[in-house]
Amino acid sequence: MKIGIVGIGCIGSSLARDIIAQRLGDVAIYDANANYLSQAKALQLGEIYDDSAAFARACDIIFVCTPVRSISTVILECAPHMKAGSIITDVGSVKSFILAEIKGKMPVGVHYVPAHPVTFGTIGTGPDSGDVGNFVGRKYILTPDDTTDAEALHTLENMLVKIGAEIVKMSPMAHDLILGFTSHLSHVIAFSAVNVADKLSADEGVNVIDYAGGSFKDMTRVAESDMNMWRDIFLCNADYVHDVLQRMIEELKDFDGMMCRKDVTAIEDFITRANTIRRNSFK
Amino acid sequence: MKIGIVGIGCIGSSLARDIIAQRLGDVAIYDANANYLSQAKALQLGEIYDDSAAFARACDIIFVCTPVRSISTVILECAPHMKAGSIITDVGSVKSFILAEIKGKMPVGVHYVPAHPVTFGTIGTGPDSGDVGNFVGRKYILTPDDTTDAEALHTLENMLVKIGAEIVKMSPMAHDLILGFTSHLSHVIAFSAVNVADKLSADEGVNVIDYAGGSFKDMTRVAESDMNMWRDIFLCNADYVHDVLQRMIEELKDFDGMMCRKDVTAIEDFITRANTIRRNSFK
Repeated sequence: MKIGIVGIGCIGSSLARDIIAQRLGDVAIYDANANYLSQAKALQLGEIYDDSAAFARACDIIFVCTPVRSISTVILECAPHMKAGSIITDVGSVKSFILAEIKGKMPVGVHYVPAHPVTFGTIGTGPDSGDVGNFVGRKYILTPDDTTDAEALHTLENMLVKIGAEIVKMSPMAHDLILGFTSHLSHVIAFSAVNVADKLSADEGVNVIDYAGGSFKDMTRVAESDMNMWRDIFLCNADYVHDVLQRMIEELKDFDGMMCRKDVTAIEDFITRANTIRRNSFK
Repeated sequence: MKIGIVGIGCIGSSLARDIIAQRLGDVAIYDANANYLSQAKALQLGEIYDDSAAFARACDIIFVCTPVRSISTVILECAPHMKAGSIITDVGSVKSFILAEIKGKMPVGVHYVPAHPVTFGTIGTGPDSGDVGNFVGRKYILTPDDTTDAEALHTLENMLVKIGAEIVKMSPMAHDLILGFTSHLSHVIAFSAVNVADKLSADEGVNVIDYAGGSFKDMTRVAESDMNMWRDIFLCNADYVHDVLQRMIEELKDFDGMMCRKDVTAIEDFITRANTIRRNSFK
């Protein structure tokens, strides 16, 4: 079996390494970045292709590991060249958007399975940044909809189990809402808090971040995250990020209300609930 | 010179240790918690008093290191017994509230100097949790207003420099706004995000925190913070926390607007500004 990777960055090259380590098949690699391709070759991560059509014809399964906004384009570029019965999947952090983009455009007999290794925790970029065993014990969400082929889903699931992933299935909408909250909203808050700090510093004539301790530092850590990646995630998951942002704003307003009217019982309940939930998480 | 500490917890016991180490005077200790008093005695942190009037009569300078909501009460309890020319200061994280509470109630000749070691980073509770050198290189804000005695301010400042603190002066209002932003708001956001997670989990029938990575984990770390302490800070600094909460909500709404209308340039600018500011902070 030939397993293709498009986009040989941290996730793609980790997949390639696990496929080799677990002897799941031969790895084929395609990337629009020629520099990444030669690095992947030097690292012996698989057979290198510089033509997407030849790459797609050769593969039985393709993992699309490119930035989220280009995933649907890559799928629609590869799919027409793929064999009947072959599978194409992706690792994008937004799912409904990709399904909508490719809807009605897939050739018959080529099966797309939407997926997202959610707790992967990308570190670094490029073929060198991946590692063996990066999926072990980590949640890998499959988000089939009513167009997903059951056998293709099963085949992919079996392969992912072999690299140690913990498989979870949910709808694309549930995925986009949950990740919109746990991941995307945290980034909106980090970017926003830093921008408010900047305005407040201008108003007060003092760099307010000089007076920040650990709470602000931790909250804004991800405000250093890659601009291109996050612009694309926000654009592709706008509806769900909007939804969770409204929920967060409502919660902040509710708290503001109890604080301003000095509602001691409500404030105590608010903090105590958060204490309990947070202390029972991340064990 | 006799230097008094009321409230022999992490900050108070660190002060006591530094006063002893730097030979700045004799330490006197008063605490309503008899257990803390006997621990302080065993640790040889200073002379133990179980009567606040006797304690106040003995001291030339008193540091009030109790929870924020009780600071003004302790000041007004000690001040009538203090000698003419003596000084009383505090380490509370809210300043305007305390000044308002004691306004017009201080005996003539006893000087209150409002202060806050902002980047102290309290770890643990009780006399055992303090350490020598905890103030070295850390910002210690003095917030004099027009009632503050200049000589008392100068005396306190000299003492704090000897324990290594970096002295900063600003108005009580600027302090409360800046700390309301850098510290208090971060806690409101952490408590709120965890409470939204709980509601979203109920709506979706799945524990959404199971799908959280590092960004949510870091953002909500302080949601485990002590309820009594934070209830009191929110109650005592409600006006300024309200102010910064409005700024934050406006920023979140602005971002939501650019995201929903797919304003690529605005989103790119929003993230790029945050990237730049965050990368230049916390070096």
